[in-house]
Amino acid sequence: MSEQSWVPVPEGSDFPVQNLPYGVFTPPGSGQPRVGVAIGEQVLDLSAIWAGTPLGADLATGSLNRFMRRGPREWAYVRERVTGLLTDQAERRLVEANLYRIDQVTLHLPVEVADYVDFYASEHHATNLGRMFRPDAEALLPNWKHLPVGYHGRAGTVVVSGTGIRRPSGQFKGPQDPAPVFGRSAKLDIEAELGFVVGAGSALGEPVGVADFAEHVFGVVLLNDWSARDVQSWEYVPLGPFLGKSFATSISPWVVPLAALEAARTATPEQQPQPLPYLVEKEPWGLDIDLRVELNGAVVSRPPYAGMYWSPAQMLAHTTVNGASLRTGDLYGSGTISGAEPDQRGSLIELTWNGRDPITLPDGDTRTFLADGDTVTITASAPGADGVRIGFGAVSGTVHG
Amino acid sequence: MSEQSWVPVPEGSDFPVQNLPYGVFTPPGSGQPRVGVAIGEQVLDLSAIWAGTPLGADLATGSLNRFMRRGPREWAYVRERVTGLLTDQAERRLVEANLYRIDQVTLHLPVEVADYVDFYASEHHATNLGRMFRPDAEALLPNWKHLPVGYHGRAGTVVVSGTGIRRPSGQFKGPQDPAPVFGRSAKLDIEAELGFVVGAGSALGEPVGVADFAEHVFGVVLLNDWSARDVQSWEYVPLGPFLGKSFATSISPWVVPLAALEAARTATPEQQPQPLPYLVEKEPWGLDIDLRVELNGAVVSRPPYAGMYWSPAQMLAHTTVNGASLRTGDLYGSGTISGAEPDQRGSLIELTWNGRDPITLPDGDTRTFLADGDTVTITASAPGADGVRIGFGAVSGTVHG
Repeated sequence: MSEQSWVPVPEGSDFPVQNLPYGVFTPPGSGQPRVGVAIGEQVLDLSAIWAGTPLGADLATGSLNRFMRRGPREWAYVRERVTGLLTDQAERRLVEANLYRIDQVTLHLPVEVADYVDFYASEHHATNLGRMFRPDAEALLPNWKHLPVGYHGRAGTVVVSGTGIRRPSGQFKGPQDPAPVFGRSAKLDIEAELGFVVGAGSALGEPVGVADFAEHVFGVVLLNDWSARDVQSWEYVPLGPFLGKSFATSISPWVVPLAALEAARTATPEQQPQPLPYLVEKEPWGLDIDLRVELNGAVVSRPPYAGMYWSPAQMLAHTTVNGASLRTGDLYGSGTISGAEPDQRGSLIELTWNGRDPITLPDGDTRTFLADGDTVTITASAPGADGVRIGFGAVSGTVHG
Repeated sequence: MSEQSWVPVPEGSDFPVQNLPYGVFTPPGSGQPRVGVAIGEQVLDLSAIWAGTPLGADLATGSLNRFMRRGPREWAYVRERVTGLLTDQAERRLVEANLYRIDQVTLHLPVEVADYVDFYASEHHATNLGRMFRPDAEALLPNWKHLPVGYHGRAGTVVVSGTGIRRPSGQFKGPQDPAPVFGRSAKLDIEAELGFVVGAGSALGEPVGVADFAEHVFGVVLLNDWSARDVQSWEYVPLGPFLGKSFATSISPWVVPLAALEAARTATPEQQPQPLPYLVEKEPWGLDIDLRVELNGAVVSRPPYAGMYWSPAQMLAHTTVNGASLRTGDLYGSGTISGAEPDQRGSLIELTWNGRDPITLPDGDTRTFLADGDTVTITASAPGADGVRIGFGAVSGTVHG
């Protein structure tokens, strides 16, 4: 029998007691942002549960960082205690006094982002882009199966779900144009990804091994890496994407703790050739998480995270193998999640094959890239403990001019 | 006649009263880090000068960020007041009670770095690398003269001068190798750069124009962008440098305020083709700053910043033209500073032409790239007010295994 909370959890909720994702919220009409945990349709104010203690002070702040910095033992202790409060009615009055309806609170960016890195870990995505842009060459570049390719992005423009996305201006140049032109991007795109939040840092000069993933990574968010393809394709040689990505990256307000995803762990696809030893996992951190991408309410893609070539533990080990340190609040994205099937592609550039094959929405409208007024919402599901479904809330954004 | 301080300033000092660079230091044997200003061979504790005021609280912290966040009017006010204290003897007792010898204090990383971006703004450097790596093609890529090419780097591994530099490990693959190998980098290099520190942020969605540079940028540091060339060349296609750069970036402890560099302003080289309007400067922010690179005490290069193609105001305008916001503590590097002459190149890969032409040090040793135990020190000079010389202190680092 599955463990249940005495707090009502509607059938199909993203937030059963087996999940308990963390967020930062402001209660209706009052006060300072604080840390809470979602249960059903409500959020429990953790700063009130631990009021008057040093932990309570670390929970009465505008980000998860001070709590995350306490490290994995404290994460486990808080999760156990909250599970107890929500399943045992002994302290029901304390809990009830500190529950708020999620639809009545303001949700904030949950993490003060330190460094943001984005990877490129889907073989299908990398292959699709290779086919589009280098039709006469091997689709995958020579390094792709030897290391998780990644680059640093702009931490300061990571925004919480619901933040409006202003269509970026910039310069771009078509193959026939004699010189670049300046204007609003005409190829505004999404990338459906997972984001991994580092809770516990590491020392400069000390690599973090693949087996130490859960000692450092606190949890998982949904991430939309908004991309201006026309800007990106003109600027990115030789130093990589810059303004084509840096205008906004949206994340979901709820950070699902790794502890909630134990039942979702799965093997990554076979890695051939075998990676160098520092990338070899004994107990792989592939994750069986199914995403869903909606454009103006219509499902346009269902990207499966389970098929990603590189695991998040491999990405973390790679990031630090040169001695680079981790900090609390580091965030890294998986890269666009695309599956083998056409309706599993996590970006419009793939779904429309760079605009060649527009998609048709239920109202008859067609899209190649995003139009002003379009809303993109990404959600996800994973198997949880006791056979329940773990949800991630949503990352959503509306484009404006 | 040049304005002088009653505090002794030795002939040739980097820190005459026309400079007044900001740093963060801990006095000998005591207390918390605080903000100070260098004068001659001493540092004035600004937190003590403003003790008991809100400004004093913002100066009694471990970084310049809280002071910088106050904005350009406050920067001007503090500079004027400190200049007065150091030139007028009326408050000599107050000043003398709060001066420390620089060689007796501990200097810290002056800025809590928000986002770190590195550019590629020297035409000579970009041309040299193009000639080395694409000998059969145009040395400069098509976008190079249309926009300042840049990418995000790792903010969490920006370290202060004097921090030891551990030789990074990683994977690399020579053109003849059938597969990549893992090991310590055999091509550890430097890049001599200037770094620009953003003091006042900007709003998401609102580009910062070239004319607003001094409203946002607080000052200038020396920067050494340590680079593992073997790691970089294997990993960097298609998303740019990652582990080849992210293990360490060193900066000088002193931030020279823009106000001290008015006499150093100069035109950038002619830009042909004319850039797009958002990059056109009416009063250019080229800077006449001469760098000097020493390897184990021997001068190996004298890179001239005045020849840089793109100005720091153009880099800032480009960074934000897509609506990306700035934050207090953002740091951006100029990219390797290389002049037209062989002895003006700011990296070993250029000085030794990727190892083909080793350099010989005074003791007869030769180098292609850095050996364990090597110390690299970068210093710089600029013309200041009243005909004095403005120095930048130094950024120095020693490689260890």
